[in-house]
Amino acid sequence: MNRAQLIQAIQEKQSFLCVGLDTDVEKLPAAFDKTPQGALAFNKAVIDATLPYAVAYKINTAFFEAMGWQGWQVMQETFNYLPANVFKIADAKRGDIGNTSTQYAHAFFNQMNADAITIAPYMGNDSIEPFFKFTNKWGIVLALTSNPGSADYEQQVINQHQLFELVIKNTCSIATPNNLMFVAGATKPQSFLTIRQHAPNHFLLVPGVGAQGGSLEEVFKYGKNADVGLLINASRSIIYASNGADFAQAAAHEAANMQLQMKKLLQL
Amino acid sequence: MNRAQLIQAIQEKQSFLCVGLDTDVEKLPAAFDKTPQGALAFNKAVIDATLPYAVAYKINTAFFEAMGWQGWQVMQETFNYLPANVFKIADAKRGDIGNTSTQYAHAFFNQMNADAITIAPYMGNDSIEPFFKFTNKWGIVLALTSNPGSADYEQQVINQHQLFELVIKNTCSIATPNNLMFVAGATKPQSFLTIRQHAPNHFLLVPGVGAQGGSLEEVFKYGKNADVGLLINASRSIIYASNGADFAQAAAHEAANMQLQMKKLLQL
Repeated sequence: MNRAQLIQAIQEKQSFLCVGLDTDVEKLPAAFDKTPQGALAFNKAVIDATLPYAVAYKINTAFFEAMGWQGWQVMQETFNYLPANVFKIADAKRGDIGNTSTQYAHAFFNQMNADAITIAPYMGNDSIEPFFKFTNKWGIVLALTSNPGSADYEQQVINQHQLFELVIKNTCSIATPNNLMFVAGATKPQSFLTIRQHAPNHFLLVPGVGAQGGSLEEVFKYGKNADVGLLINASRSIIYASNGADFAQAAAHEAANMQLQMKKLLQL
Repeated sequence: MNRAQLIQAIQEKQSFLCVGLDTDVEKLPAAFDKTPQGALAFNKAVIDATLPYAVAYKINTAFFEAMGWQGWQVMQETFNYLPANVFKIADAKRGDIGNTSTQYAHAFFNQMNADAITIAPYMGNDSIEPFFKFTNKWGIVLALTSNPGSADYEQQVINQHQLFELVIKNTCSIATPNNLMFVAGATKPQSFLTIRQHAPNHFLLVPGVGAQGGSLEEVFKYGKNADVGLLINASRSIIYASNGADFAQAAAHEAANMQLQMKKLLQL
């Protein structure tokens, strides 16, 4: 999916919601077996329920890897189940020397048919570049994350800039707003002013609204750009909105609520 | 495998060699199908050939993920094939918010039965801590890597210390030399002096000898400690020593050469 198609989806659905599939077999509603196949059936039900309200889905690879190879197969089948008109993110946080990053890109772009993969930048530019050699595929580089540990390195100062600023500046020199996004946590909304100084035109993938407590309104206020430029992720607050038989309706209700808030913000 | 067992293996084999299984189906010798099953048969042959000379094996997850779920299955079977008296490393470079890192730990420690996983530290301490909650399992945190991109962030200065030094100092406060190692690239041997200031007792996993050009003697000179404290990884230079019918003998020959050099260094 390219940038124009993503923007079109946002306009059509009046939503910039990304649903995060952090599918933990231990947390499945009672109707599902605590197995990889149970997780797949749950994913499909959540996707069906939330599809009217979401423009993107983010699959957290860790939860599928924790189920072994059958989990990897279920991750593949979940990607396959997603329709072509949603933006498909592998939240994998990969990054390694060049020939290895190329293999990760093959795994998620070619095998999984993901539109995007999240990338951990610690090893530097040559570990990130291989992800940008695929047509209509995106790299989403960790900049400022939503967790407390973002203070340990990301916010440390190097030559008068915080590390995450340096990551944004460097990465903007090796990719474009048409194939590069950044992760920016909703728990630090005023930081979006700084991020937008370095990346005015890029989309930002924003975790931390929902279970982690970030504010949608604040993120929109400080983070939006002319093309909206935001994908707001909610995972646990949607997919585990209820663990009863009404889990799908509850997920739809939560996603619809977020979409309604987004629609109002888009019409301001 | 605990630290005492690792040290015992090093003494018994007079080796601190780690063989890296970066198994690329496109590079398999002609005798093997370019399929996940071909990769598995190749891995087994390489393990059989190099086992007398190696104390550790490092499986690069990217190359298996690039084969899809069958690749993940082959990765599992390769871990299963490794005997209990070698140190088994999942070179996965994972790291995410706490509940996600816990899932990665389950994936590699419980499902794969790896002894250790490599960890990317960008997201900070709370993304690293979950890996240290498993008995007799190890986290190997990226410090100073062997690629040129290590200059982009790892070597940048924060409060008079390079970022990789800050990573080492912080991580030493949340784990011990009995469950924590660091990645330190052989391409910068004098940096081992700096690393040893912060982590005198830890083992270091050292890539970059072999295809990347680092010197075993220099790494040993600057990096060894009282328990040797080094695992020197070689991947491509061993597993692709020949792509002919003699690939296994060539891999054994290359591994034996490295072990002989190591034996001489250990007896200095």
